[in-house]
Parts: sequence; C-alpha cells; structure tokens
Amino acid sequence: MIRAYAAKTADETLEPFDYEPGVLKDEEVEIKVEYCGICYSDLSMLKNDWGISQYPLVPGHEVVGTIAAVGDRVTTVAIGQQVGLGWFSHSCLHCEWCMSGNQNLCLTAEQTIVGRYGGFANKVRAHQEWVTPLPKGIDPAKVGPLFCGGLTVFNPLVQLDVKPTDRVAVIGIGGLGHLALQFLRAWGCDVTAFSTHPDKETEARELGAAHFVNSCDAQAIEAVANSFDFILSTVNADLDWGLYINALRPKGRLHFVGVMPSAIQSNSSSLIFGQKSLSGSPLGSPVTIARMLDFAVRHHIEPVTETFAFSQVNEAMAHLAAGKARYRIVLKH
Amino acid sequence: MIRAYAAKTADETLEPFDYEPGVLKDEEVEIKVEYCGICYSDLSMLKNDWGISQYPLVPGHEVVGTIAAVGDRVTTVAIGQQVGLGWFSHSCLHCEWCMSGNQNLCLTAEQTIVGRYGGFANKVRAHQEWVTPLPKGIDPAKVGPLFCGGLTVFNPLVQLDVKPTDRVAVIGIGGLGHLALQFLRAWGCDVTAFSTHPDKETEARELGAAHFVNSCDAQAIEAVANSFDFILSTVNADLDWGLYINALRPKGRLHFVGVMPSAIQSNSSSLIFGQKSLSGSPLGSPVTIARMLDFAVRHHIEPVTETFAFSQVNEAMAHLAAGKARYRIVLKH
Repeated sequence: MIRAYAAKTADETLEPFDYEPGVLKDEEVEIKVEYCGICYSDLSMLKNDWGISQYPLVPGHEVVGTIAAVGDRVTTVAIGQQVGLGWFSHSCLHCEWCMSGNQNLCLTAEQTIVGRYGGFANKVRAHQEWVTPLPKGIDPAKVGPLFCGGLTVFNPLVQLDVKPTDRVAVIGIGGLGHLALQFLRAWGCDVTAFSTHPDKETEARELGAAHFVNSCDAQAIEAVANSFDFILSTVNADLDWGLYINALRPKGRLHFVGVMPSAIQSNSSSLIFGQKSLSGSPLGSPVTIARMLDFAVRHHIEPVTETFAFSQVNEAMAHLAAGKARYRIVLKH
Repeated sequence: MIRAYAAKTADETLEPFDYEPGVLKDEEVEIKVEYCGICYSDLSMLKNDWGISQYPLVPGHEVVGTIAAVGDRVTTVAIGQQVGLGWFSHSCLHCEWCMSGNQNLCLTAEQTIVGRYGGFANKVRAHQEWVTPLPKGIDPAKVGPLFCGGLTVFNPLVQLDVKPTDRVAVIGIGGLGHLALQFLRAWGCDVTAFSTHPDKETEARELGAAHFVNSCDAQAIEAVANSFDFILSTVNADLDWGLYINALRPKGRLHFVGVMPSAIQSNSSSLIFGQKSLSGSPLGSPVTIARMLDFAVRHHIEPVTETFAFSQVNEAMAHLAAGKARYRIVLKH
C-alpha cells in the first residue's frame, strides 16, 4: 500500500489517498520518498490546465528518496541508494530519440504525474533509467527542484550549445529563473536578469546576474537592443516578444521554457535580417540530469527553498499559487 | 558616365538614366555588366515596399560581368576577369561580424541598390571583397540569380548545419524554391516540395523533390506531421505556420528567408514539447558565395531562367510582377 496525497477532482484540496501499486515490474524501482519539490506544473495539472489530468491526481515530480525495492532486472541502482526522480518516469528506450540520447523527446515517454501517481506520497515508482543517483556533496533536502525546474533551464544550455563567451539574459526571476542565473554564471556567461520586480535586483545579482533590467519598463528593454546572444524566457505570461527579439544580437536566440497563454508573435523580417531564432525545449535526458547534478556540485548551485511538511501540502500549494514562493518549495516527511 | 535604367519615383517605369560615378575608390572595382538577374526585391525596392528606396532608383543586384577598372589598392581581382555581384556591395570589414566571416550581418553593410545605383546599367561598382570571380564551368548567362536568390537559400544550409541525412522540405517552388530543391538534393537530403501549384509537381521532382505536397490542402500537410528536420520557407505570404511546425520532427527547424506581410504566430507549447525552432537568415558572406558557386559547378546546379534584353527591362519587370517568371529572369546586353 502506498500512502499518497491526491485531489479527487480539479481544484479540490489534496487529501490522504492510499493505493495498491501492484507487482513491481522487472526494471522498475520503488523509492521511499524523503523530499518532494513542488513545481508550478503540479498546480497546472491539479487544475487540469492542459486537459491531460486524470483523477484522483497525485502530484509530485521532484522526488528525492532512497531505493526501497528493485525489480528483478534492475542493475543501475541498489536498495538504500539515494536518488532523484523528475517529470519523466519512463520512456520506450527503443525509438530513435531514446537511442540517440534524447529520451526526453520520446513520443511515448511516461510522465510521473500523468496517468499515474506521483511523489506526494511515502513511496513512488519509476523505471530504473529515469532514476538518478545523487552525487556526493549535494544536499538532499534542497536538490529536488533541480530534477524538474533545474533541468528545464539547464538543458537548453546543452542543447543550444550556449558558449561561456556569450552575453545572455534570463526573463523572469522565479522558480526557474533563479536557477538559470546560477547555471549561467557558472557557465562563464555575462548574465542579465529581466524581472518585473525591482525588489528582486539584489538577490538576482547574488544569484548570478551582472546586470538587472526592470522588464515593466519598455524603454529599459529598448536600451539593451542588440545586446544578447541568448535569452532564456522562463515566464508563463504574454510579453512583447518583439522587444526581446530586438534585444538579441545578430545570430541571437530567444528560447522559451515556459508555456504562454497566447501565441508568440514575431515579424519575419526581425528574424531574417539578424539571423535570429525562437525556440523551445522540454526538460532533458537522464544523462543531462547527471551532468547537471555534477555541475551543480562543482559550482555550489542549489535552489533557494522553503520547506513544508507533507501534512501541510495544501498550505504549500496555496503559497505557490499566490506567487509567494521564494523560490522553490520542498515538502519533507 | 554610366548608362543605367532608373525609376524616377515609386511605381514608374524604368527609363534610361545616365550618371557620373566619380573617382573610383582605392579598393573599388568597376564591372562592365554582361547580365543582370531580376529579383523580387528589385520590384519591392521599385515600389518602396520597405520604405528605404531612394530615387532615381537603379535596380539590379544579380550582376555578372567583367572587371573594367580597379582602384589603386585592389588585389583580389584583375581587369578582364569575369565576376558576379549580389545584394551587398560593401561592408565595414572591421566589425565583429565582418572579422568573424559574417560580413552579411555587418550592421553598416552597403546594399547594391539602397542609396546607390545598381546593375541595370552598362557598368556598376562595388568593393573588391564583395565581388566574386566566377569559377570555371559555370554559365555566365545563367549564374546571376545565384548571387541573390541562390545565396539566400544556400546560406541557411551552411548556417543551420543541415545534415545530408536530414529529411527536409521547401515551401514555395518559385525563384528561390526551385534553387533550394536543387541544393538540397545535392546536399544529400530527402527533399519534399510544398507548393500551391499542383502543376509544378513534375518540374519540382526533376529539380530535386522526392515528394510533393499540395499546400492548398491542409489535410495533406497534416498527413506529413512529424516528418521534417528542416523546412525552408521561401514564400512572401502568410500561411498557417502551426501546420508546418506540426510537420517538424522533434528538434526540427522552420526557417524563413521570405518576408511575410503579417507576424508569424506560434504556440510556445508546440516549440517546447518537440524542441523546435523558428529562424531566419539574410543572404550570405563572400566566402559562402564562393562555396556555393563551387558546389553549384560540382553538382550542375543552375537557375531555370528566361532571358530578356536590357532594352526590354519594363516588360521583364511586368512579367515578374505578374508571377509568370519560370523561375528567374536574366537581363542581357
């Protein structure tokens, strides 16, 4: 029996929910959950914002815990080992994308909280290939959010081959952005933070920004025209993207990891004349997770977290929904 | 004295126009024009579609001719040598973009028909670095259109590192697209043509397409969902770009070289979940021009052209404006 927290329908509060997980599959592991980060996508799934939620819904996809049981053919982790689990819990492992190291692009990848039960629980299961051992030197109480939020902003640096000599910017200094600032500074880049909250400037600079632009001020954005090789947008809001395309240097790239309510609008000429691009990416592969953790240890990168007990899960969700999280929430048993 | 054809105001017909070019600069060359291609951008400039036209306006930026005079410090070409000249006639040669081989991205690059007189003339001038000797084996009567139209579609293959193993598509089989099909087949790719003209299918296949999709048929485009690594749009019309983004495989790229009247609209989620991108590019550098010509000779790539005498320049422009060019027009002395 697994003891979890679930919502029975959209918008309901989470309540204790027990379920019987059945026989552990050959290549599956069962993780005894110690910590679980809360991600904005847990909230989106609870509200069925994307139309893919199934109820009862057990959120939680930034899991840290120890291996409690392993299937007969598990070879990559052992009982008692401390591991993490993120948005994906399995992928087919046979398609072109899995076989080329892009398991996160597998068209049939299994998502930890879609059609199955996630990490707001005492235990959660996943395929061995999507469970990553924690490296030495990482704080298990804080690392959870790297498995979704961290990976989301780290993966583009790898995929788009961002260079340490690049001038880069991060739009939105929240759960994702505060991690992006840290990764990009450690990556060697000159980092600018765009935020609608001028009161975040001091902290943004501590986290890695060398420059700060108040993104409520269109003139301030115009003043940095032709400045950036790479801009990472972490926001879920509709902005005037033309301003940011204009802030790119020739060959510059504006990359999205946050889903916006409305379509992105861009003039073809503004892409053509400066050889610019707009792009997006989802999470990352297991190998990228391992590299991210290694990089985070080497550079002392960790999320800024607030901790709640699992029994306070509804207060924690409300705190996130109110936009008050600074910057990621971790639930603790 | 240079004898040219110019329009005195927007929308006027071209008339003989003589001008005194002044002293040849140290690093400039004077080309005796033999042929000049007509590009759709000559028409756009004549009509002042982009608000940058100056009158009298002498179009012509797909020039082929022989070096008739050289400035004191010219070292790269010699009198009598056969050369070509495209959209750019000079760039600063000192900025980051020029010095890194991206002279076409120089923010102060001089454009052959913007604020100066182009190649609808008996002679035209340019800086030596933007004048490219014709390689052996190329037909001077046909090569003109490669200097603008050809370069526009060849450069993205270099810049975006298109692979011979890629599955690619070209939207629009006209002046640009019929060259893109040839380049992409020679590049080794599996090539699909999207055209609103089903009657172009046979010719598209001869030019390089292995597959043909009638792009008036939305269902036919939906049927090739998740098919392409790279789609090159050569059109100047607003299409349902969501259909084409959907036709990209994971990591796929939709690249624009034609300027559209309206903004491109794209949902962030469709870029994010498949790690897709939208991008654009303008022309190419002098080195890319030389590589394109070398590649064209090796693979017997040349524009399909119709030839008019320079004295028929207004008939030729009207033929282009009516959408009747198959596929590029070349003026001949």
